[in-house]
Amino acid sequence: MKMIVAVVQDKDSHRLSNALVDQEFRATKLASTGGFLRSGNTTFLIGVNDEDVDRVLEIIKNNCESREQLVAPVSPMGGNADAYVPYPVEVQVGGATVFILPVERFEQF
Amino acid sequence: MKMIVAVVQDKDSHRLSNALVDQEFRATKLASTGGFLRSGNTTFLIGVNDEDVDRVLEIIKNNCESREQLVAPVSPMGGNADAYVPYPVEVQVGGATVFILPVERFEQF
Amino acid sequence: MKMIVAVVQDKDSHRLSNALVDQEFRATKLASTGGFLRSGNTTFLIGVNDEDVDRVLEIIKNNCESREQLVAPVSPMGGNADAYVPYPVEVQVGGATVFILPVERFEQF
Ligand code: NI
Ligand code: NI
Ligand code: NI
Repeated sequence: MKMIVAVVQDKDSHRLSNALVDQEFRATKLASTGGFLRSGNTTFLIGVNDEDVDRVLEIIKNNCESREQLVAPVSPMGGNADAYVPYPVEVQVGGATVFILPVERFEQF
Repeated sequence: MKMIVAVVQDKDSHRLSNALVDQEFRATKLASTGGFLRSGNTTFLIGVNDEDVDRVLEIIKNNCESREQLVAPVSPMGGNADAYVPYPVEVQVGGATVFILPVERFEQF
Repeated sequence: MKMIVAVVQDKDSHRLSNALVDQEFRATKLASTGGFLRSGNTTFLIGVNDEDVDRVLEIIKNNCESREQLVAPVSPMGGNADAYVPYPVEVQVGGATVFILPVERFEQF
């Protein structure tokens, strides 16, 4: 058995949860911040049998992979107009940082 | 040394904390949601010496084991009266999902 | 690769974050409570190559080590005046509890 620790952006978290539930994998979600990814993120703990690790990694990749997105400009409310960009810009969103840890023993009560 | 990662229901969390403190085990609690257990849950990280693993598992079992509970019916406030059950029902509460991870090194500063 | 799990006091958390970023280590922070340390605390997850473990432990030690601090007395607002101490007292602050876990595999998407 392994414990998969996956840090993903909040915006992909709900979709990943649903995809895991659909395939009958069970995860615990921890609210987390900073570091591995730029914005707010969620840390998933997923307990899986050895033979399912690759399937879960595939699900994480499919739902969270880093990609570019066009973002419409936000008009600068009382902000510095100098920084205002009047056309959509491409930003990097998503991404997942994933650690696979060995589990010595597993119990359910 | 091992790290015990235990996901338990919020309703059992306070009792488990007290039981661990009573026996002089130290735990860190992380707010968590979803997945392993139906309702709101708490993830405990407990660092223990190898010889104490079974004692801590026993404490978790005694305080969090899955059990049935009678729940009084809630009158359907503006809800669908069809779903209303006018007598107490048994629901499953509690339960713990526990991973024991190997620890390579431990430091305190 | 290793996963360093470090539980530190909230008051040292921001400084540790900055020190890790300065040295280009990436961490995820989880809000946590109780147990290993007296007051509110933060759990850091830090993924590092084997050869960087000691450097990261040094950073944690430098920023979080347990130390004594003089605390000015707080006048007892409607509290029990018996417990009031009219001079600064030394309290223990800081401290870090650190687990180093083996990582079997690491992926980024
Ligand atoms: Ni939904
Ligand atoms: Ni109490
Ligand atoms: Ni700052």
